[in-house]
Amino acid sequence: MYTFADLEVRISSAEKEMEEIKSENAGKERQINKYDGILLNPDQPKVAFSLGLTNAGRLGPYNTDITLRFSKIFKNYGQAYNPDTGVFTAPVRGAYYFRFTFCEINNAHWMGIHLYHNSKIIMTNYDRSNTYYETMSNGVILELERGDVVYMVLQAPYTVYDDHRNYSTFTGFLLFQL
Amino acid sequence: MYTFADLEVRISSAEKEMEEIKSENAGKERQINKYDGILLNPDQPKVAFSLGLTNAGRLGPYNTDITLRFSKIFKNYGQAYNPDTGVFTAPVRGAYYFRFTFCEINNAHWMGIHLYHNSKIIMTNYDRSNTYYETMSNGVILELERGDVVYMVLQAPYTVYDDHRNYSTFTGFLLFQL
Amino acid sequence: MYTFADLEVRISSAEKEMEEIKSENAGKERQINKYDGILLNPDQPKVAFSLGLTNAGRLGPYNTDITLRFSKIFKNYGQAYNPDTGVFTAPVRGAYYFRFTFCEINNAHWMGIHLYHNSKIIMTNYDRSNTYYETMSNGVILELERGDVVYMVLQAPYTVYDDHRNYSTFTGFLLFQL
Repeated sequence: MYTFADLEVRISSAEKEMEEIKSENAGKERQINKYDGILLNPDQPKVAFSLGLTNAGRLGPYNTDITLRFSKIFKNYGQAYNPDTGVFTAPVRGAYYFRFTFCEINNAHWMGIHLYHNSKIIMTNYDRSNTYYETMSNGVILELERGDVVYMVLQAPYTVYDDHRNYSTFTGFLLFQL
Repeated sequence: MYTFADLEVRISSAEKEMEEIKSENAGKERQINKYDGILLNPDQPKVAFSLGLTNAGRLGPYNTDITLRFSKIFKNYGQAYNPDTGVFTAPVRGAYYFRFTFCEINNAHWMGIHLYHNSKIIMTNYDRSNTYYETMSNGVILELERGDVVYMVLQAPYTVYDDHRNYSTFTGFLLFQL
Repeated sequence: MYTFADLEVRISSAEKEMEEIKSENAGKERQINKYDGILLNPDQPKVAFSLGLTNAGRLGPYNTDITLRFSKIFKNYGQAYNPDTGVFTAPVRGAYYFRFTFCEINNAHWMGIHLYHNSKIIMTNYDRSNTYYETMSNGVILELERGDVVYMVLQAPYTVYDDHRNYSTFTGFLLFQL
């Protein structure tokens, strides 16, 4: 048989254990809340755009380089591309993939474009074929800081062509955040 | 020294606290089970295909437009591309990237293709060069509902060419679910 | 009023319940620790490269096929591309996307390249146009085992051209691990 003193010892011990359990559980609570924050937003930001240049036919030749405003928006997830300016602005720091295709349908016209990252020319492409319906494509991965801009420029005095057939396109998407 | 009544109060209090701990733990249990469901399937579906057109040489010219059945499957993750029909069917709603390259090796032949999303032409590309071994490439991001189809069509009376060298390809992959 | 024996029964019951709670909590602890391992490394490896060929102008013609060493590194996340050899080595098993563009600026030169996976030619592309500033692009998804290599080869006696404008590029990235 337990004595009164035995019971008192056992209760004190039980009370102490409960305090420990409550303290441990508070720690688990914090961990679980942290997971909630991660798991309720498990994905990286959805940033992806895909554009057609114009329905207006030939752009150029101009006397100066101009930023190409791709006016046909297939998709613009994250609204990071601004059709008023032709400029993509990175909403998060990360590695982004960009690719483009340009077409010229007339043998008397040549193509010449730049891909810019902020004020720096990343790549330049020409097509000086003397035949009809020529295309040129290229692609690159860029590391962008939040707020960095990427855009395409038509060189003077070259031309590019597009209509409802979407010959000339510009596409980009976030590969991963950094 | 504790009295008998003191002990009774302390036991009642301990019993009550244990009920609270058990109730809290049941809540944590539900949260943890929810995480299990998420974490055991952390990835988005793996949907990606990459195809070569044919080993048969030139396709076309035909009298009508035909859906191109790319017969060489580099990869077909998710089995969403059907080589019997040439049609890709989206297994989940999402943003998908598609890109293609076509080649014509003979200067007497011209290329003309469409990229379809369901019954709508998304883009059309031509290469009417009079030189040998010409290529054309393009790419686009499409938002597909589950069950939407994407496929490429050779226009009449144009041609495309491929052999074991895999000049002419069609590639697509899921960027993210929506 | 409770008797002494009643209290003894209640304490025994409370002690037993606490043992059960502690055992359950140990199980939750293990689950939470497992989640920590997953959530602290939620991302797949960041593997992505993007390269420009050379600032040296024309490469080739050579008497034998040579592996192209792309010397301009836009990005090399994961350091899986080796600029000393021109070879990309897969750091993890997975599905990878590769794409390239090559340019020749002179109408007297033709392009011819191979894309290799280990010792196997995956695709070959030519451009035998007789006009200036011609480009060719292609892309493919490959399934690579850890340690597999991918590289591009200039065929004899063809040429490719690049300068600071980055006409000729090679880009690849991990789509998903397998």
